[in-house]
Amino acid sequence: MIKNSTTDIEDLIALMAKLPGLGPRSARRAVLHLIRKRALLLTPLAETMSEVAATARECLNCGNVGTGDLCTICEDMTRENGELCVVEDVSDLWAMERAGVFKGRYHVLGGTLSALDAVGPEELRIPRLVDRVQAEQVNEVILALNATIDGQTTAHYIADQLSGQVRLTSLAQGVPIGGELDYLDEGTITAALRARKDI
Amino acid sequence: MIKNSTTDIEDLIALMAKLPGLGPRSARRAVLHLIRKRALLLTPLAETMSEVAATARECLNCGNVGTGDLCTICEDMTRENGELCVVEDVSDLWAMERAGVFKGRYHVLGGTLSALDAVGPEELRIPRLVDRVQAEQVNEVILALNATIDGQTTAHYIADQLSGQVRLTSLAQGVPIGGELDYLDEGTITAALRARKDI
Repeated sequence: MIKNSTTDIEDLIALMAKLPGLGPRSARRAVLHLIRKRALLLTPLAETMSEVAATARECLNCGNVGTGDLCTICEDMTRENGELCVVEDVSDLWAMERAGVFKGRYHVLGGTLSALDAVGPEELRIPRLVDRVQAEQVNEVILALNATIDGQTTAHYIADQLSGQVRLTSLAQGVPIGGELDYLDEGTITAALRARKDI
Repeated sequence: MIKNSTTDIEDLIALMAKLPGLGPRSARRAVLHLIRKRALLLTPLAETMSEVAATARECLNCGNVGTGDLCTICEDMTRENGELCVVEDVSDLWAMERAGVFKGRYHVLGGTLSALDAVGPEELRIPRLVDRVQAEQVNEVILALNATIDGQTTAHYIADQLSGQVRLTSLAQGVPIGGELDYLDEGTITAALRARKDI
């Protein structure tokens, strides 16, 4: 109901409402907050966004996002240690990097195989993964796919493709650190019990 | 843990995480979404943001946000009907406008009186409200403040300042449209019962 010269503000609200996790109400709240913190937040955000819009692109090697043809991880020669961690998505790569424990390189599939959504191996950089395993000196492929049906189906397919060529591993399944048994689902408890270890 | 040339992406995540309703996790998710929808979302968002950053300002008359010295409502002569609706915040003004039922003008206080936070009448455009009531031909001041302690304290203070000069009204309190009694608090039910009407 606010017209004409305030259209920019309305446009901004409409665009913000398209972000995941924000609806119309929280978009309005965010826009008011932005207008109030113009110098501190709105202007830097506008500048950083156009910077990212101009420079962000997918790494040609692994599918991570970065600002060059190769991402910083693929460019970093110290990370060429023969370990390749396969993840579904860039957000999973970021999660692995936050843990800070993996020192090798990544391969981002960009999703999971899905017959329903007609996502086949070609859509998922799986041929590129097979190429990389042969071209780079990879000894171990760690399948860090999500523990969902689609994730596990994709892991099985990749394991088939690479079997015999390289050591294949997957992340351990079990009780999360800090997790309470009472709050865990039966599947996790079953997996943790089956994979129990001597102390 | 992602370095150097991806700093822009990290900066963008850090800035997005400062928005109300977004934390670090949802900011990362939003940024990945933005990078994927670059042409459709990221570029238009960056442009609209810098447009709004350059033009948005407070209406000198009522405190609404707009892109000129006066907001569209204050510029619209058809809305000079002698009714002035006092709201705490621009978001409350927007909520009133969405209802589309009020045809007069607004006065945005910019908060509520608060002894704890040292917010006095001077910080709240209350002197400006008293001036407007005298300068503009206002017959009725509608106090549409939130039904909180601070909101009601502010309403009482304004009523004191304007008493005798103009008709003062406040929004009715009662059962929300579509509300179920079972889910309402005792205060609302008490207010609704006291203000009961003949059918």
